[in-house]
Amino acid sequence: MSLDQVQRIMNAQSVAIYGASDDVSKWGGGLMHLLLRHGWQGKVFPISRKDSVQGHAAYPDIGSIPGPVDVACVAVPVDQVARVIGECADKGVAGCLVISSNFAEAGEDGARRQQQLVDIARARGTRLIGPNCMGLMNTHARFNLCNSSATEFYDYMPQGPIGIASQSGALMGTMLARAYACGIGLSSGISAGNQADLEICDFFEYLIADKHTRVICLYVEGLQSPERFRALCRRSLAAGKPVLLVKAGRSESGAHAVQSHTGSLAGGYDNLAAVCRQLGVQLMDDVIDMIDAAMAWVSVGDWSTGGVAVATASGGGAALAMDALEQAGFDMPQLGADTQELLAKWAPATHLQLPLDAGVLAAHGSARDLLQGMSESMRAIMADPAVGAGIYVMTTQKYADVCTRVVVETARSCGKPYFLVNQASEVGSAASRSMREAGLLEVTSLTSAVTVLKALRGMAAALHRPLEPAAPMQLPAAVAQLLPPPGPGPATVTLSEADTKALLAAAGLPVPRQALARNADEAVRIAQDIGLPVVLKIEAIGVSHKSDMGGVEVNLTTTGDVRRAYDRIAAAAGRHLKPGQMTGCLVQQMVPGDVELIVGARWDPQFGTMVVFGIGGTLVELLHDVRILPAPFMRHEVLPQLRQLKLYPLLTGYRGTTPVDLERLVDTICAIGAFTCSLGPRLLEFDANPVRISGSSICIADARAVVQ
Amino acid sequence: MSLDQVQRIMNAQSVAIYGASDDVSKWGGGLMHLLLRHGWQGKVFPISRKDSVQGHAAYPDIGSIPGPVDVACVAVPVDQVARVIGECADKGVAGCLVISSNFAEAGEDGARRQQQLVDIARARGTRLIGPNCMGLMNTHARFNLCNSSATEFYDYMPQGPIGIASQSGALMGTMLARAYACGIGLSSGISAGNQADLEICDFFEYLIADKHTRVICLYVEGLQSPERFRALCRRSLAAGKPVLLVKAGRSESGAHAVQSHTGSLAGGYDNLAAVCRQLGVQLMDDVIDMIDAAMAWVSVGDWSTGGVAVATASGGGAALAMDALEQAGFDMPQLGADTQELLAKWAPATHLQLPLDAGVLAAHGSARDLLQGMSESMRAIMADPAVGAGIYVMTTQKYADVCTRVVVETARSCGKPYFLVNQASEVGSAASRSMREAGLLEVTSLTSAVTVLKALRGMAAALHRPLEPAAPMQLPAAVAQLLPPPGPGPATVTLSEADTKALLAAAGLPVPRQALARNADEAVRIAQDIGLPVVLKIEAIGVSHKSDMGGVEVNLTTTGDVRRAYDRIAAAAGRHLKPGQMTGCLVQQMVPGDVELIVGARWDPQFGTMVVFGIGGTLVELLHDVRILPAPFMRHEVLPQLRQLKLYPLLTGYRGTTPVDLERLVDTICAIGAFTCSLGPRLLEFDANPVRISGSSICIADARAVVQ
Repeated sequence: MSLDQVQRIMNAQSVAIYGASDDVSKWGGGLMHLLLRHGWQGKVFPISRKDSVQGHAAYPDIGSIPGPVDVACVAVPVDQVARVIGECADKGVAGCLVISSNFAEAGEDGARRQQQLVDIARARGTRLIGPNCMGLMNTHARFNLCNSSATEFYDYMPQGPIGIASQSGALMGTMLARAYACGIGLSSGISAGNQADLEICDFFEYLIADKHTRVICLYVEGLQSPERFRALCRRSLAAGKPVLLVKAGRSESGAHAVQSHTGSLAGGYDNLAAVCRQLGVQLMDDVIDMIDAAMAWVSVGDWSTGGVAVATASGGGAALAMDALEQAGFDMPQLGADTQELLAKWAPATHLQLPLDAGVLAAHGSARDLLQGMSESMRAIMADPAVGAGIYVMTTQKYADVCTRVVVETARSCGKPYFLVNQASEVGSAASRSMREAGLLEVTSLTSAVTVLKALRGMAAALHRPLEPAAPMQLPAAVAQLLPPPGPGPATVTLSEADTKALLAAAGLPVPRQALARNADEAVRIAQDIGLPVVLKIEAIGVSHKSDMGGVEVNLTTTGDVRRAYDRIAAAAGRHLKPGQMTGCLVQQMVPGDVELIVGARWDPQFGTMVVFGIGGTLVELLHDVRILPAPFMRHEVLPQLRQLKLYPLLTGYRGTTPVDLERLVDTICAIGAFTCSLGPRLLEFDANPVRISGSSICIADARAVVQ
Repeated sequence: MSLDQVQRIMNAQSVAIYGASDDVSKWGGGLMHLLLRHGWQGKVFPISRKDSVQGHAAYPDIGSIPGPVDVACVAVPVDQVARVIGECADKGVAGCLVISSNFAEAGEDGARRQQQLVDIARARGTRLIGPNCMGLMNTHARFNLCNSSATEFYDYMPQGPIGIASQSGALMGTMLARAYACGIGLSSGISAGNQADLEICDFFEYLIADKHTRVICLYVEGLQSPERFRALCRRSLAAGKPVLLVKAGRSESGAHAVQSHTGSLAGGYDNLAAVCRQLGVQLMDDVIDMIDAAMAWVSVGDWSTGGVAVATASGGGAALAMDALEQAGFDMPQLGADTQELLAKWAPATHLQLPLDAGVLAAHGSARDLLQGMSESMRAIMADPAVGAGIYVMTTQKYADVCTRVVVETARSCGKPYFLVNQASEVGSAASRSMREAGLLEVTSLTSAVTVLKALRGMAAALHRPLEPAAPMQLPAAVAQLLPPPGPGPATVTLSEADTKALLAAAGLPVPRQALARNADEAVRIAQDIGLPVVLKIEAIGVSHKSDMGGVEVNLTTTGDVRRAYDRIAAAAGRHLKPGQMTGCLVQQMVPGDVELIVGARWDPQFGTMVVFGIGGTLVELLHDVRILPAPFMRHEVLPQLRQLKLYPLLTGYRGTTPVDLERLVDTICAIGAFTCSLGPRLLEFDANPVRISGSSICIADARAVVQ
C-alpha cells in the first residue's frame, strides 16, 4: 500500500508547486526551473497569485487545479505547512514533498510541529516526504524534483542503475556529483530528511521494486523500523541488488550532530554493524566510498573467487599497492603456468608473476609493441583462475595513453571487477576522460581502491550465499515458570547465580551440579554428594565480582579443604559485606577448563537480542576481543565469528592444550542464542562467564541474568 | 664532502647529455628538451656525432667539451654505461645521472654490473645518481634534469618549499603532479633509483641544508645507512624541517616488489615504524597522503594544542566528519563563552557549538549576510583556544562561492592549519580553483583529511619536543666476563636461565634468589636456605617452554612440597626428555606477582637493539600487545609507550589489585634497555619473561638470552 503510493510519487504525472516563483534563486522557483529542465512529460502547476510562473499557468490554490495532482511541493514558511498539507490531502495528492525546515531537528517545539503534520497527513490520506528534505528524482522518467546544487550544476541527467535513499539532501547531491563525474547515472534518488512519515525503508522498498535499479545506496542517520530494514535487506539481495549503507552518528559527537541535523536518534553502532555483517549489507564510513563501490559494482563484473591483480608502470606504485592490498587481507594471486608462458612473450623471466609492470614491457619495444604486449598480458592475467579482480595503478608515467586504452578494454571485456587508481592528478586527466566516457570507475587513492575492493568482495559474497532467516526457538514452559512474574515490583531484577542456572538447566543448557549450602557442614555434605573436587562461591545479594572480595575458592579436593574454604569465605564476607548479605555458598562441581569463554546477550531496543561472545577471564573487558551475532542466527554463522577472535588459537590446541570440540562449542552458542532470543525483551542482559571448556566437556560455570 | 658534491650537482652550471637527440620521444632527447624549457641559465652540451642537437653545438665526446662539466646525464645502452662513467670521471664531472636500467633490480648479473659502475666512480672521484632513476630538479635554479611525464605535462615549474628524495621516479612525478594541481611547488626533487652510490641520505642531507626547503618527503624502498638516517632526522627537526616518509615493502608481497624495482632489501617494518615514532618522523602509507601533509604544513600555520573545528553546509557531512575525527582520536573542541556569544549573532541557540553549519546561517538571511556571518563566525572559532586546526567539508551545497571565499580567507589568516575537504567532485570545481590560486590544500575525502590532520599533529609535536640522543650505558666488566668468549664454536649460543640471570645480576638487575639443585635433597636444602615458598623449574638443555612439559612447580610452601615437586619434575623429564638432558632444578624464591610483564630485546641489523615490552603470560604471542622502543632511549619515552598497551589498565590497579609502582617499572625497563643496548650485536635475542610485579616489588622471574 505504501509501495503503491511511493511508486505514484516517483512516477508523478502532475506536480503542484507551493512557493513557485520566477526567481530561480528562491527554493520554489529553483525547484520548478529544475523540474522543467530535463524533458519530463508531466504537468506542472505553480501555485501563485500571479497568472503564470515561468511560462506556466498559475493557480491561486491547489483546489482550483483541474485534474489530479500526484505530488505537491511545499516550500513555504514553517507556520503555513500544516494548512497546505490539509489542502493537499483534500485534493487527493499522493505525496507532499516538504522542503521547509525547522521541525524535529530544531528541538521539542519543532518535534511537536512535525507531529502535527504527520497527524494531518495520516488522518486525511496523503503521505509526507521530509520535512527538512531536498527532493527526489527518477532519471528514467526524466523527473527531477530536487533543488540540489548538483542538479543545478549539470544540465543533463544521466540515466543509470544506482538507487539512492538518503536522509541528507546534500550528501545525495554529493553522491550524484561523484557518479556523474564518472559518467554513471542514478536510477532514482530520494532525500528523506526528517522521515516524519515516509522513511528510508519506504524508499528502499521502492528501489528494490524499481526495474532500473541494480544496486542500492542508503545514507541513514536513524533507523525508524529496524525489523523492516532487515526484511528489506534480505528481499533486496534475493532480488540480486546489493545494499550499501552509510550510518552517521557512530561516534558520540557524530550522534549529537545527527540529532541536530534530522532529529534522529543514532542507536548503537556496534549492533548495527553486526546486523549488516549478518545480512550482507556493506557498511561504509563515507558516502563517496559508498557511491564508488556502487559504481564499481555496476560498471564491472561479478567477483566469485580469486585475488587482486595489480598492473602499473611504476615499480614503486606496485610495491605500495601490494602493501595496501596485503594489509587489507587480499590474496596475492599466483599466476598459473599457462599465464606465465604467455607473459614470457613480452616480459623477462624475472617478471612472470604479478604485479604486471608496463614499464618493463615498454623497455622491450615500441609503443605499438607495448599496446599489444599489455593487451595480451592483461587478457591472460584476468583470465587466470587465481585472479578475481584487478586494478591499474596509474602514476605519472610514459605511454599513459596506451595503458589507458588497455585498462578500458580490460575493464570492459574481462568479466571481473577492474578499475583505475589514478594517482597522477592533472597529468592523468586524459585517462580520467577515457574512463568516464566508458562509464568505468576511477578512484584517486590506494585507500579508496582497497575500500572499494572490500565492498565489492562483500557484495559478491552476500549475493552468492543463501540467506534463510532463522526461526526463533520456542521458550520451554519450564523456563517461563522460573522467571519472576511480570507486574508490580522493580522494573528490572538481577537474578542470582543459582536462579540463573536453574533457568539454564530448564532450557537444557550444560550447568555444573551444584547446591546452596548455608553453613560449612552443609557444604561438606553437598560436596560429598556431588563428588570432589568442588568449588565454593559466595551467594550474596549485589555482589557481582565475587573473586575480587575473596568469595571464590577453587579446586577443593578434601572435605577438610571444603570446611576451611567455607570459613574463609564467611570471614571475607564479614569484612566486606553487610551482616546478613551473605546467604550461603554455592557448592559446585569443579568442571575442567583448559579454556574459558564468555557468552552473553544484550537486548537492543532496535535490533532485539544480540549474542556476544569472546574468550573469557578477567581480561575480556580490557581486550574487547568479542564478536556480536544478532539472534536468531544460523548455525553456520557461528564458526566464522569464533575464528575472528584474536584469541581463537586458544581453542585449537595452543601450546599443547587439548583442542576444543568446536562442533559442540558451536552447538552450545546456538543453544544460548536460542535461549536468550526466545526470552525476547524480558531478558535485558545475560552473561555466561565463564563457560569452561576442556576438549568436548563444555559447562557454564557461572552465569547471571537481568530480567524485566 | 658528499654534501659539497651533491650541492654542486643540484646547482649545476653545465650539463653534458649522453644520448642527446633531436627526437624528444627518446630518453636523452626528452631530457634535453625539458632541461631547456624552464629558463635555466647553465650550459648544455649534447654529446653526439652530429654537429648540433636541438640547436646546441654537439660534441663527439665529453673530453672535447670546453670548460668544466658539473653533471653528465647517461641515457645509453647498459653495456656502454661503465665506459661513459670512466670518461666522465676523467673530465672531473661531479655527478653522473644514470637513467639506464637493468642493474641490481634485474638480479645477480645486474648487481655485478652495478658494482662495477660504483667501483669505477669511487676509484676515479665522480659520484653516481641511480642507475635506474629518472633525474632531478632544483626549481629555484629553474634546473630540470628530469624526464618525468609530470615535467612534460606542465610547461611551468612552480617554485616552492617541499623537498623530495625518492627512490621511485614515477612516484616523485606523482607527488609533483599532486602538488602542482594544488598550486604548490617543490624546492628540489631527486629520484635516487637503485642508490648504487649517492643514496637517499645524501639527498636528505642536501635538502636539510637547502634554504628553499621547509619540509622533506622521502620515498624509500631500502635504507642504506640507518644510523645516518637517524642522525639526519634529528638534524632536520633541529633545523625546523619536518620529515615525512613512505616506506614501501611493509608486506611480504610489497617487499618482493621493491626488490624487483630497485634491488632494495625492505628490512623490518615494525622496527622502522618504532624508529620513526621515536624520532618524530611521520610514516605514511601513501605518497599522495605524504605530499598532502607536506602541503598542509607549508600552506598553513603551526599546530600547538587544541582540537579540530569542523564547518560545513551539510548536516550529514558534519556528522560523518565528526565520526571520522572522533574515531581517529581527535579532541572535539568545546567553544568558550566568548566565542558562543559571537556565534549567537548569526546562529540560533541550538547551534552555538561545533560543527559550524553554513546551512543554518544561510537560513537566516541573504548571501551577503551569510558572507559576513560565516566570516565572523569562522574568525571567532579559529581564535578560540580550544581549537587547534580546522576543516571545511564541502558537499554539493548552496552558496558554495560564499563559503569558498570564507575558507580561503580563514586558511590564510587564522594562523592555524586549515584546509578544504571537497567532496563535491566537478560541482566543487570553482572551490578547487580558488584554493589552488591561493596555494592552499584541498583534499577530496574525509579519510585523506584525517590522515593529513594526524600527520600535521605529528609534525607539530616533533618540532615542539626536545630530541636529545641518549648515551648508551657502559657494559660493566663483570657482565663482559660472564659472556662466552668470542671465537671458535657455534655462531650463536642460547644461555641457560641460570647463566642469563647471572648476567642480569652482574648488571644490577633484580633477579630472585636462586640456586641449582641436582637432586631432591639439594632442592630441599636450597629452599630452606632461600626461604619458603619457592618455585622449582627444570634446568635442561634445549627446553624453552618449561611449563608445557610439566617442568615448573610453583608456590611450594613446605619442604615436603619441594621434595614431591622435584620428583614430579624428574618423572616428567623421564617421559619427555632424553636421558641426561635434565641437569637439575632451579630452586627459586617465589616472588609476588599481581601482574607479569615480558621485556625483551632483539638485535636489528639495520637499527641496532630494539627493546620490546608488553603484558606477559602465555597470551602475549597471540595478542601482539607489545610496544617497541629502539635503544638507547630516554627515560621519558617509556611511560607513553606503556600507556599504549591495551592491557595497560592491569598496571594501574585493575579490579582491586595493587597498582604497579610505575616509576620503578620505568626504571627497570630503562635498565634492561641499557643492559641490552650495551651488549650491542653480541646479544641477538633477550627475553625477561615474566617480570613479576607486585606494587613496588619488581623481579625478573625467568629470562633467556641468545648471544653470538
